[in-house]
Amino acid sequence: MLSEFSLIDRYFAQRARTNTQRAALGIGDDCALVSPAPGEMLAVSTDMLVEGRHFFPDIDPHALGHKALAVNLSDLAAMGAQPLGFTLAFALPKPNEDWLAAFSAGLFDLADRFDCELIGGDTTAGPLNLCLTVFGSVRQDVALRRDAAQAGDDIWVSGMPGDARAGLGMLRGEWQVSEQDAAHFRRALEYPEPRVSLGLALRGLARAALDVSDGLAGDLRHILERSNLAATIDVDSLPLSPALARLPREVQLQCALAGGDDYELCFTAAPAQRAAVEAAAQQAGVRVARIGTMSALTSPQDAPAIAWRDAACKPLNLKLQGFDHFHAD
Amino acid sequence: MLSEFSLIDRYFAQRARTNTQRAALGIGDDCALVSPAPGEMLAVSTDMLVEGRHFFPDIDPHALGHKALAVNLSDLAAMGAQPLGFTLAFALPKPNEDWLAAFSAGLFDLADRFDCELIGGDTTAGPLNLCLTVFGSVRQDVALRRDAAQAGDDIWVSGMPGDARAGLGMLRGEWQVSEQDAAHFRRALEYPEPRVSLGLALRGLARAALDVSDGLAGDLRHILERSNLAATIDVDSLPLSPALARLPREVQLQCALAGGDDYELCFTAAPAQRAAVEAAAQQAGVRVARIGTMSALTSPQDAPAIAWRDAACKPLNLKLQGFDHFHAD
Repeated sequence: MLSEFSLIDRYFAQRARTNTQRAALGIGDDCALVSPAPGEMLAVSTDMLVEGRHFFPDIDPHALGHKALAVNLSDLAAMGAQPLGFTLAFALPKPNEDWLAAFSAGLFDLADRFDCELIGGDTTAGPLNLCLTVFGSVRQDVALRRDAAQAGDDIWVSGMPGDARAGLGMLRGEWQVSEQDAAHFRRALEYPEPRVSLGLALRGLARAALDVSDGLAGDLRHILERSNLAATIDVDSLPLSPALARLPREVQLQCALAGGDDYELCFTAAPAQRAAVEAAAQQAGVRVARIGTMSALTSPQDAPAIAWRDAACKPLNLKLQGFDHFHAD
Repeated sequence: MLSEFSLIDRYFAQRARTNTQRAALGIGDDCALVSPAPGEMLAVSTDMLVEGRHFFPDIDPHALGHKALAVNLSDLAAMGAQPLGFTLAFALPKPNEDWLAAFSAGLFDLADRFDCELIGGDTTAGPLNLCLTVFGSVRQDVALRRDAAQAGDDIWVSGMPGDARAGLGMLRGEWQVSEQDAAHFRRALEYPEPRVSLGLALRGLARAALDVSDGLAGDLRHILERSNLAATIDVDSLPLSPALARLPREVQLQCALAGGDDYELCFTAAPAQRAAVEAAAQQAGVRVARIGTMSALTSPQDAPAIAWRDAACKPLNLKLQGFDHFHAD
């Protein structure tokens, strides 16, 4: 059996050492030394993924490697930060070379695409658990915060939310779909695409932003609460994938509004920026859709809330549950 | 039962918000924004602690909060970095208010002592697992690296290594000790003191440094390998606590040389710096002892190795096993 140290070396450290451009000192010392670009701040985010909660025990390890980094890069995207590097700590029940080879390939395939270096880590024995911390660089005055939305802002979403939740429901047996749609949903669930380019392109254009990890309805509330605003969402303007559009309307809305694991960006921008936002999205190669409007609270005592309506402005009474990461809380 | 969000808020976020001096943006957004001091680099280290491997299931949660941060601060100390902040990701089987109150108290008691802010985090359900990432600030040219030792350097160690391993053996029933010694060993195991002040005081004095987490013998090898040197250690010069000195000599050496979880600093410095090192240690309030010498490899093919000898320079043939974090690898 490979020891902890030879495993780290074979699948992670060797890979990390070959490209230490960003970190003055990487794996192999007590700390890594990193620095944001001059005049920029370091954006930091950490996420833990637990078997049975964030992924099924039989997940393809290549997909797991991708997803573990993708959900962290998504946090940088939602801040408008340029990825620099990441640390990886993981607990493994027992070292398995095939598993580690596939996992590290999935991880580095994505890391290399975004020029994001592995700068440190920790491995231990234990129930499967992955903890990544990512580092990016962003100028403080253009960072896409959650508390910067203003009344009158358009609300935008990238991509076509809901497919990941549709994939989860399919794996759980909640609904049946065609083989082709199944492949589409499974890819959405296992290989989410962090919207890094879009986040970078939105700096100076978008006011508030976050990434949708727990469902659009629940996550939008974080912007409302921190910006102290209300929102109206036109449910019919939600962009749905053809595969999701083939499921019942009730399932579509549950998946697109309350489904998690999409990692699309939800952001607000002034109406004067519509053309600029569209151009930024085109430059980033991502579709964006305008789905609603931010508004002032009617009284200071009002709680931030979302009003749902259809394309004819008819109010809808939606019962949505937030994404529960496989299990009920 | 408290939801994930109210738990974070009650025990962690509220505490974090009250003192966001270092982080321009802390808990509650997609990322935290941090910056090292002008002209400095950010030192980053990550550690994962798993129940049954790094701590016993019945550990006092206050001690666990302390230790989880202490082992990370120890990595900053070994780099000579000034603590700035940390992120905390943890998986909990089920939220328990008493447990969280004690855990967070242990964590913040130590964090406040070193003015180290909680800047971000993630909580999830799962087998108990803690993952911390700490951030410090250090000038790149005085960082205490592992690859900077030179032939002729003295080898130093702080504190009195071995007590944590003595405490582990005691809890495992490997040896019996008096009630008073038991309390001493248990404290060493549960409340390790990160040598942050010593690390800061050694900048510009020490050449290479690391913290002893897996046993002095095993960890010193990391310096030897990265600096491409050999070492001679005078085993009789090892400072032992009175409690450890009461155990059989064989146990003393096993604990002090191959016992982990001490989090003392092992460092090298030029002989000309002896008085300055002693003064730095006194200023930091920590005892340091000179325990050996670095030497060049006799031929380029030689592997870095440690020669053990006693005070009379007689070679010793020690059979040491590295610290195994409770379980054999």
